[in-house]
Amino acid sequence: MNALGLETVNISEDRTKLVILDQTLLPNEIKYLELDDRESIYEAIKKLRVRGAPAIGVAAAYGIYVLMRKFSGDDKSAFVEYFRREKDYLISSRPTAVNLSWALRRMERVLEDNLSVMNLPGLVERLGIEADAIRNEDIALSRSIGEHGFSLLHHGDGILTHCNAGTLATAKYGTALAPVYIALEHGWNDLHIFCDETRPLLQGARLSAFEMQTAGVDTTLICDNMASITMKRGKINIVFVGADRVAANGDFANKIGTSGVAILAKYYDIPFYCLAPSSTIDMSIRSGDEIPIEERAAEEVTEMWYSRRMAPEGVKVSNPAFDVTDHSLVTGIITEKGIAYPPFDKAFERMGLSSDIL
Amino acid sequence: MNALGLETVNISEDRTKLVILDQTLLPNEIKYLELDDRESIYEAIKKLRVRGAPAIGVAAAYGIYVLMRKFSGDDKSAFVEYFRREKDYLISSRPTAVNLSWALRRMERVLEDNLSVMNLPGLVERLGIEADAIRNEDIALSRSIGEHGFSLLHHGDGILTHCNAGTLATAKYGTALAPVYIALEHGWNDLHIFCDETRPLLQGARLSAFEMQTAGVDTTLICDNMASITMKRGKINIVFVGADRVAANGDFANKIGTSGVAILAKYYDIPFYCLAPSSTIDMSIRSGDEIPIEERAAEEVTEMWYSRRMAPEGVKVSNPAFDVTDHSLVTGIITEKGIAYPPFDKAFERMGLSSDIL
Repeated sequence: MNALGLETVNISEDRTKLVILDQTLLPNEIKYLELDDRESIYEAIKKLRVRGAPAIGVAAAYGIYVLMRKFSGDDKSAFVEYFRREKDYLISSRPTAVNLSWALRRMERVLEDNLSVMNLPGLVERLGIEADAIRNEDIALSRSIGEHGFSLLHHGDGILTHCNAGTLATAKYGTALAPVYIALEHGWNDLHIFCDETRPLLQGARLSAFEMQTAGVDTTLICDNMASITMKRGKINIVFVGADRVAANGDFANKIGTSGVAILAKYYDIPFYCLAPSSTIDMSIRSGDEIPIEERAAEEVTEMWYSRRMAPEGVKVSNPAFDVTDHSLVTGIITEKGIAYPPFDKAFERMGLSSDIL
Repeated sequence: MNALGLETVNISEDRTKLVILDQTLLPNEIKYLELDDRESIYEAIKKLRVRGAPAIGVAAAYGIYVLMRKFSGDDKSAFVEYFRREKDYLISSRPTAVNLSWALRRMERVLEDNLSVMNLPGLVERLGIEADAIRNEDIALSRSIGEHGFSLLHHGDGILTHCNAGTLATAKYGTALAPVYIALEHGWNDLHIFCDETRPLLQGARLSAFEMQTAGVDTTLICDNMASITMKRGKINIVFVGADRVAANGDFANKIGTSGVAILAKYYDIPFYCLAPSSTIDMSIRSGDEIPIEERAAEEVTEMWYSRRMAPEGVKVSNPAFDVTDHSLVTGIITEKGIAYPPFDKAFERMGLSSDIL
C-alpha cells in the first residue's frame, strides 16, 4: 500500500515476481499475490484477480518478463519460441482484453528489435525495462488525466462516480478517480465521493468505495437507483466516469448504467465528464451506434453474490455489460492531452487524433 | 392460486383462519400460511410475510375477525375489551403502516355501531362481513385502476415497472400491475413486462418478476441501471409505477429510484404513469417537498441477501427508502376515479378531492 492508498500491480523488489492485489477478495481482505509461474499468472488475469484495461496490460508485461527470466539455455531461437508460446498463452486468458494483447505485442516488438544486437541476459533486462516503461507511462498518463480533472474541482465538492475507474483499474491514480488522488496530493481533504454500487458486479461497492475509503476520502455508497435523489439533494457537484471506448463524435461506451447517470446529471444541471486515455478514442467509429454491447450471463443478476436465488427460476434477464452515453449529455472528455469540449470531433482533431493514424 | 396468478391474502373456506402467501419465501417457495392465533398474525405482519398497504389492511381485518371468532362467553363489554386489546396489539406490529390502523379502526367502528342492536354471534358475523367488504372494495378499486390503465395499452406493448405494486401488494390485481392483469382477462397475451430489480430490497426481482411470470406474462428482469439502455433500445412503450403518497400538485413519493425512472422516461419521450388509489392523494400537502423520506439501515445495501459483505467495513451508506417524483415528469396519475392529467391540482378537484374533506 502506498501513501495514497493501494498498489494494484507491480514487480517484486528482487524483480522475480509479478505482484498483484487480489481484487476478487476485496473489500473483505487485502491480499497481495506474488506470481512467477505461467498457470497462476494466467489464472489471475482470467479470474479478474487483476482487472481494468491498463492494470491488465501492466500485469501481462511484468508477467511475461518474470517468465522469460526463468528461461535457461543460450539458444536465441528457443528463447523467441518460448516467448511466443507464453505470450499466446497469456493472451488466451482474456482474449477480448485489448490492453492484454497490446502490452504483450509491444513486449514482442522490443524483443524482435533487439534480438540481433543483444545477448540473452541483455534481452531479458530489456524486456524488464519495457515492462517498467509500460507501467510508468500508465502512471504518467493517469496522473495527467487527474491533473486536468483536478482543475475542475472546488473545495468541498461532491463527486459521483459509477463502476470503478480508479487506481485499482490502473497502475496508479486511475482515470475517473485520478482527480481525487491529485487533490489528495495537493493536501485537499474536503472532497466527498459518492459511489454508485454498480449492479450486477458491484464494482462501485466492492472497489471504488473501498479504494476511496482506503485513501482517506469521505466516501458514501449508494445504490444505482439513488443517484437521482442524491443529485436532487444537492450533494453532487460533478460526475466523473471512465470509458471503454469513445467514438469520433464523443459518444462513449462505459459500464452499464453510465448513460442513465448522464441523463440524470443533465436533468439536474450537473457537469458530467468522461475520463479516459486518448487511446480509448476510436476515430474510426463515427458514433456510439457502431459500438457492440456485450450481453452477459443472467446468473450475474439472479444469483451472483447472493446466499440464495433472488429471482424466479427461468425468468428472462437482460444483462448488457455496457451502455452508450450520447455525446449531447457529456460536458467534456478528459484525456492525458487535455479536456475536449463539444463539438468533440473537432476537439479530438485539435488533440492530434484522426481516423487515419489510428 | 387463482387463474390470474397468486392469491395474496384471504380467509379460509371455513372462515376460521387468515390465509396469506408468505412473501418472505418468494421467489423460491410458494407457501400459504393459515393463521388463527394472535402471535402468528402479529409476526406475519411484522416480518413482512404479508406486505403492501392494501394487503396489510385486508390481513388485519381478517386477522382480528378470526381472533374474535374465538371469544368465548356472553359478556359484551368483555368482548369489546378483548377486541381493543387485540386491535392495539396488531397495530403495534407495524405502527407506521397507515392501512393497518385504518382497517382495524374501521372494524372497531362497525363493532361500536352494532353493539347495542346485535348479540355476540351477530357481532362476530358482522365483523366478518366488514372484513369481506374491505377485501372486496380493495379488489374493486384495484380492478378499476387496472381498467383505466388498460385503456392506455396497445397490443405488443413493453411496460416498465419499478418495485412491486402488483397483486402481491393488494387483495388482487395491484395498482401499477393491475392494467396487465386486466389485459390478461381480455385475453391479451402479447404484452412484455420489464421489472427493475429495485435495490436494495429487490422487490422487482423477488416479487414483480415472480408474480408476472406466474401469471404467464412475458417477463424480463433488469438491474435498475439498465432502464436507460432498455428504453433506448425501444423496448419500453409505457411506464407504470405505484405511489405511497401523492401531493396536491401531483408530486408523489414512491420506492427509491422512481424519480430516476421518470427522468429517463422524459428523456426518451416515453409516457410515465403513476397508479394508486385516490386515498393516496393527500390534498393537504401542496408539494412533494413536504413528504418526509425514511432513511433505512446501511446493512440493507452492504450485507442483506449476500453470502458475504459487499462493501468496505465502516463505509458511509445513504439508503433512502423513497424518493419524490416531480409532477412535471408525470404523464398522468391513474386512480379508481379515472386518469388525472396536468395540471393535477385542478384534475384532483374535478375528481372530488379537496383538502377540506380529507
